[in-house]
Amino acid sequence: MNIAVLGTGVTGQTIGTKLVRLGHEVMLGSRDPAKPSAVTWARDAGQHALYGTFQNAADFGEIVFNCTLGSASLEALQQAGSENLRDKILIDTSNPLDRSSEIWTLTVCNTDSLGEQIQRAFPDSKVVKTLNTVNANVMVEPTKLTEMTDIFVSGNDLDAKATVVMILKDWFGWRKITDLGDITTARSVEMYVPLWHNLRNAISAQRFNIKVVTS
Amino acid sequence: MNIAVLGTGVTGQTIGTKLVRLGHEVMLGSRDPAKPSAVTWARDAGQHALYGTFQNAADFGEIVFNCTLGSASLEALQQAGSENLRDKILIDTSNPLDRSSEIWTLTVCNTDSLGEQIQRAFPDSKVVKTLNTVNANVMVEPTKLTEMTDIFVSGNDLDAKATVVMILKDWFGWRKITDLGDITTARSVEMYVPLWHNLRNAISAQRFNIKVVTS
Repeated sequence: MNIAVLGTGVTGQTIGTKLVRLGHEVMLGSRDPAKPSAVTWARDAGQHALYGTFQNAADFGEIVFNCTLGSASLEALQQAGSENLRDKILIDTSNPLDRSSEIWTLTVCNTDSLGEQIQRAFPDSKVVKTLNTVNANVMVEPTKLTEMTDIFVSGNDLDAKATVVMILKDWFGWRKITDLGDITTARSVEMYVPLWHNLRNAISAQRFNIKVVTS
Repeated sequence: MNIAVLGTGVTGQTIGTKLVRLGHEVMLGSRDPAKPSAVTWARDAGQHALYGTFQNAADFGEIVFNCTLGSASLEALQQAGSENLRDKILIDTSNPLDRSSEIWTLTVCNTDSLGEQIQRAFPDSKVVKTLNTVNANVMVEPTKLTEMTDIFVSGNDLDAKATVVMILKDWFGWRKITDLGDITTARSVEMYVPLWHNLRNAISAQRFNIKVVTS
């Protein structure tokens, strides 16, 4: 499948590499048509790894991963172009973080979320929020943790969520996937991120996740 | 030990009953000097179970649990009186929830928290935020879940946190207790509550908690 990955940071490269290894054609998109980090990634990741602008990538992909920084996501998606995102599944892994001070804060929360903002800005796309609660390595290699942990999906389109659940399960190896509900539930997974950050500091590790345990 | 439990709802009664069974003298405090739910609780919980006003309870307790609704906590603590809370450990289990609509929101978050508001309002008390991430039953019976899960403490006073860790461990049975840092980290555990609420809806259960799993 042709897949667009918007964003050339650690998350974009990690997901892009995983998808190439699974046999997909992947185009990493950025503002710059030949961003050095994307060029290097494509050279190292093999012949199915491509790069281009946000617009090139969105046009190329049948499915689109948003792996840009939350602070840049809406602008990146505008550059990608609503016509190139129309009717497509848009998997949103981003977080609306302000990391300018030691205590991370969110630029939107509580009564709105970045996931909702994206869905409102691109009403003809099928936004599914997922994977934003874990580090990039855990996103694509959940089985490397010592136990199976939980991942969540939020979105308005049931078919799109079913496809994303298949991707999480069959491609990335997730086993415990909980559908939290419509895109408004993106608020809760984004608001979890400050706890993720405090846990990261407390346990001095980035590769971790939470497992939901019942009685 | 003489312990004050402010709030006569499910959380206050559950914690109060557990403390009485552990052999402590417990006074449940409320606005009303003889609130029916507190009178009934005291009659059923045995001779070490007392009730009174917020002020009576805070004066009585060597340690104070805040189990009032977050929306009423600051007022309840004002009624308890700063002189009765001075130098005492104030264990804050409350959440600043607005439950007036189907989607729960917080009345304070992101750049402040109820834990911090309480600490600022009562600078001579030692506020330790904990237990707000689980249901009342799980608070005092964590071992009834199928696996040991995680609980968190936030607060400025290290000795107070050490005492609270002892209470969580020796009295309530918690084994995995993570010190997240000073009282500003209360933001993150309060902001986790919307995810708790969505999980509760998704799994149709209230008795659950999260376990942190590493690589």
